[in-house]
Amino acid sequence: MTGTAPFTADDYRARMARAARAAADAGLAGVLVAPGPDLVWLTGYAPTAATERLTLLVLAAGQDPVLVVPTLEAPDAERATGACALTLRDWTDGKDPYAVTAALLDGGGRFGVSDSTWALHLLGLQKTLPDSSYASLTEALPMLRAVKDEAELALVAAAGAAADRTFEEIRTLPFAGRHESEVGADLAALLRRFGHEQVDFTIVGSGPNGANPHHETGDRVIERGDMVVLDFGGLKDGYGSDTTRTVHVGEPTDEERRVHDIVRAAQEAGCRAVRPGVACQEIDRAARAVIADAGYGEYFIHRTGHGIGVTTHEPPYMIEGEEQPLVPGMCFSVEPGIYLPGRFGVRIEDIVTVTEDGGRRLNDTTRELVMVD
Amino acid sequence: MTGTAPFTADDYRARMARAARAAADAGLAGVLVAPGPDLVWLTGYAPTAATERLTLLVLAAGQDPVLVVPTLEAPDAERATGACALTLRDWTDGKDPYAVTAALLDGGGRFGVSDSTWALHLLGLQKTLPDSSYASLTEALPMLRAVKDEAELALVAAAGAAADRTFEEIRTLPFAGRHESEVGADLAALLRRFGHEQVDFTIVGSGPNGANPHHETGDRVIERGDMVVLDFGGLKDGYGSDTTRTVHVGEPTDEERRVHDIVRAAQEAGCRAVRPGVACQEIDRAARAVIADAGYGEYFIHRTGHGIGVTTHEPPYMIEGEEQPLVPGMCFSVEPGIYLPGRFGVRIEDIVTVTEDGGRRLNDTTRELVMVD
Repeated sequence: MTGTAPFTADDYRARMARAARAAADAGLAGVLVAPGPDLVWLTGYAPTAATERLTLLVLAAGQDPVLVVPTLEAPDAERATGACALTLRDWTDGKDPYAVTAALLDGGGRFGVSDSTWALHLLGLQKTLPDSSYASLTEALPMLRAVKDEAELALVAAAGAAADRTFEEIRTLPFAGRHESEVGADLAALLRRFGHEQVDFTIVGSGPNGANPHHETGDRVIERGDMVVLDFGGLKDGYGSDTTRTVHVGEPTDEERRVHDIVRAAQEAGCRAVRPGVACQEIDRAARAVIADAGYGEYFIHRTGHGIGVTTHEPPYMIEGEEQPLVPGMCFSVEPGIYLPGRFGVRIEDIVTVTEDGGRRLNDTTRELVMVD
Repeated sequence: MTGTAPFTADDYRARMARAARAAADAGLAGVLVAPGPDLVWLTGYAPTAATERLTLLVLAAGQDPVLVVPTLEAPDAERATGACALTLRDWTDGKDPYAVTAALLDGGGRFGVSDSTWALHLLGLQKTLPDSSYASLTEALPMLRAVKDEAELALVAAAGAAADRTFEEIRTLPFAGRHESEVGADLAALLRRFGHEQVDFTIVGSGPNGANPHHETGDRVIERGDMVVLDFGGLKDGYGSDTTRTVHVGEPTDEERRVHDIVRAAQEAGCRAVRPGVACQEIDRAARAVIADAGYGEYFIHRTGHGIGVTTHEPPYMIEGEEQPLVPGMCFSVEPGIYLPGRFGVRIEDIVTVTEDGGRRLNDTTRELVMVD
């Protein structure tokens, strides 16, 4: 649940109306939203889990929002903050929830459907309404949640500040001789101590494990001389944090310093490129060029960043080919890295928000190479 | 992760071969499996999360299994127990993962796709291969994971025994004067103490909250005189537990006793109906008839049960209309209930496995009405 966000029924009503209008503008007959971040953002409703029982918000221009919900979950749905801005349409076990939903839809329409909607449910709708068609929300309305309002920006900034406090604490703790998983547990505990209700990842990539960008934590014992990638985040009051710093246990070698300097310069270049109107891919290009020019291009094996909001990974993506222009209020990561297989990795990541005339980082710990014990 | 299950690469190889054969028998060109319980069961691979980056297992008869995986997650995938029984096909950020997948598929074929595959990914495949078609695994191969082998049965039984120990402990703790959420936290801690690595639900429905079958826990303070529905479970060594007992704080009224007796008789009737060859719906009918005959039919508002295995909710479903015959090795819940709106609820639930000549309960705590303090 992310029921701690300080939004009112009017906020949710306005978001649902905005989504319905955006859908109409995009030529869609409506928007269909299953449990997940879009449903939280639109209604404040977060069922315990997405399941085989269909829960689906139906938004269409000129029509009141309807939430199709299993009867036995209706009492929980009624308690969501946004519930008074919509109509519940419940269905009992044994009934066909796709027929219930289809009755609300234009049978020949094209609908945006939330990315994480189960295939089970999409196939159920496609079968019930064979003339309907669908596009993922990321394809159809990728920027629906991308531009944050003042209240949301304050929450993303607060989550970032909590992540920064986590880094300031973890750098004072011992690294050498401990398992990565112990440091990861410390990161999780610190994130919670500083207000996170959900920890999404605590990557501790020491030595060669740092060269695997998505390595979580493992049994490896951290040694003196290791580079250690620390990438951690989650949700605080319903909004995401995500930051990375790479530390060194003891004195780094010249090569380690050089690689870290290159990544730091790349991250700086990415952040400096942020301003309204610039295409997302330009952020990726700016960071990538620094690494490529230094001769490490082949070792930067992922995109430069991703949006953040009620999730820790969402559009817009800072990636070659993404021509979406930046808009004030967008929040995303800038996180280039260099990964030397079998040896070590370096990544530096801040969340950046687009301002009227540039970008503002929401993480503020040092990006110098920090030495730990 | 559910990497604690004691299965070998050969086990996973056999399961993948079984799935490919079952698909061919069902007229499918193959099976497509995204991260989730089917992928865990088929390969032992459980990425941290299902995401917007496509990970998809491709199984087809007469073809080696292929796992399409993002490059930066490939090192994790390689460590899965089943990885040596398949080929990894990785794709890097910026490439089209649907084109990579499509190259492995018969473009005009019909495929089974795991239920929880994101709509984003299904739509990507449908767009890339417009002549392909899809059915959910629950529709196409509902019984793929339903029949448990000896090792799996032992794990489901062990999870059930841990849930039973949880009930034996919780009934000795105080109820009156505590918030439902405190009792829920105790249930979660006990499940973990007795070996669960994942807690899926800890329903504590006291007084009127018990009349909402899916009420989790809330701020309500439990009072003397309350009926309290306790429904809890999760995963232990990768396999599920799920049991419900309804307790009473102090002495019950005659009506409370009567309703509890009816549910107990209904649950008994459902369990007694279990034997090979009987249709799933007969289990529902057997339990429902007892409640209907007692005049409470309208207050039993959900199906009688669901399968359990590497998830706590899966086929087969004990519901009117489900004609699937029971097969030895199937495991599912039998959990009738009566829900009196605004007053109280009663539910009793055991996991039952089908044996050669009947059924065997995997929960063994008393089904009498237990009085707590």
